[in-house]
Amino acid sequence: MPPARRIRIKIAYDGTEFHGWQIQPGLPTIQGALEDIARGLEGSPVHVAGSGRTDAGVHALAQVAAFTLTNPIPADNLRRAINRLLPPTIRVLEAVETHTDFHPRFDALDKTYRYVLFRREICPPFEWRYVHHHPYPLDEAAMAAAARHFEGEHDFTAFAASDDRDEEGRTKVRTIFESRLERQEDRLVYHVRGSGFQKHMVRNIVGSLIEVGRGNLPTGSIPALFSPDFTRKAGPSAPAKGLTLVSVTYPETPAQS
Amino acid sequence: MPPARRIRIKIAYDGTEFHGWQIQPGLPTIQGALEDIARGLEGSPVHVAGSGRTDAGVHALAQVAAFTLTNPIPADNLRRAINRLLPPTIRVLEAVETHTDFHPRFDALDKTYRYVLFRREICPPFEWRYVHHHPYPLDEAAMAAAARHFEGEHDFTAFAASDDRDEEGRTKVRTIFESRLERQEDRLVYHVRGSGFQKHMVRNIVGSLIEVGRGNLPTGSIPALFSPDFTRKAGPSAPAKGLTLVSVTYPETPAQS
Repeated sequence: MPPARRIRIKIAYDGTEFHGWQIQPGLPTIQGALEDIARGLEGSPVHVAGSGRTDAGVHALAQVAAFTLTNPIPADNLRRAINRLLPPTIRVLEAVETHTDFHPRFDALDKTYRYVLFRREICPPFEWRYVHHHPYPLDEAAMAAAARHFEGEHDFTAFAASDDRDEEGRTKVRTIFESRLERQEDRLVYHVRGSGFQKHMVRNIVGSLIEVGRGNLPTGSIPALFSPDFTRKAGPSAPAKGLTLVSVTYPETPAQS
Repeated sequence: MPPARRIRIKIAYDGTEFHGWQIQPGLPTIQGALEDIARGLEGSPVHVAGSGRTDAGVHALAQVAAFTLTNPIPADNLRRAINRLLPPTIRVLEAVETHTDFHPRFDALDKTYRYVLFRREICPPFEWRYVHHHPYPLDEAAMAAAARHFEGEHDFTAFAASDDRDEEGRTKVRTIFESRLERQEDRLVYHVRGSGFQKHMVRNIVGSLIEVGRGNLPTGSIPALFSPDFTRKAGPSAPAKGLTLVSVTYPETPAQS
């Protein structure tokens, strides 16, 4: 039996038609599509680990995943073979052989997400899948100021998904390295880079920023939401379709290709 | 009964999920979607005339159409009402009241189309609907030179759809004002503006340009294809998904809004 090889892949996907990253019996998911193909190539079940789950409808420009194969196919041929079998809404951008204990989730240094609000009255038919259409008045300057408050190490309990918020034991403390909102023509774009994100966390941050923009939440009230005493949910979740996982960073550069 | 008003609309659509512009019983089409909504607003059947048909899978940035209504709803409210009822893949960008004999097809001065070839090996999941993915070698300089030969008044019989080519009586002569191919980063973009286009004509021109790029058709042989003696089809049709109707020009500016 040939030695096991650890393959690291970078993947882009349009999440519109998928029930998220995580495999679910009978439903199209990104992980499910990749595991089906890897199993076909390997002749036995293959677990594809991701850097993290993305929700149903969330997109990725460069999600990172890894799996172990004994099939000796060169990494670049493997990439082409997988792309031939995937739907056009998922593309493997890169495949490299890496060290056998590489784990895309535990080894990640940080992740960057982008959330796009489309601000004009008419959302182009070519963009509606990738943006949250929000043409209503918003105080964008207040939102931009509020966005900066998320930078630093904070307890994000108020920004966790409802079903995770009451869970004991796992820390809700995360470090956000960058949290910035900027206008780009017709789009209001939120960039966030952090050590890790809880379920729905970015969508809940954006939901709170929209509340700030609507005048329902003062910019200065954001820091109070990080207090362990604040146990409710900060704001509504912004819709999944506006969210894209942009990149995941790792300490090393990939070893062999 | 209130007087009949002629409404001119500008429409963008993602043609991926539609069986083209023209109404077809039981199939989703752009004209069908618009006529359904207009009938609902008017309370009686409404014919929506377009500047021309687009094939199944062809997109539009600014198709022009017109219909006659007695409903006195202001044009801008009409646009909003129609958009609320349309799927997000079709958007009415503009609605204005115009002179009662306006016809989007017969009054058109020229039309501009764009065809996009995506040239890199991996086509992004966010673009595959709007481009023809063609990562194979092409002599792009030869194609660009060949593209210029289409400018001028020519007999386009060799570029008509197979089912139209043998049809007697209707002229196949068209005037092309601009025919230009240019590289834009990962895309090879063909722009064509002309007095009118036959069914499949742009896709057949692009199919012939690809044949030039593959070395199967010399650049200098293009003029011979316009001869009435050349009665075969010049080249294969390029796929519909790469084609977008960009704009339609009319002599006047819209009258009242």
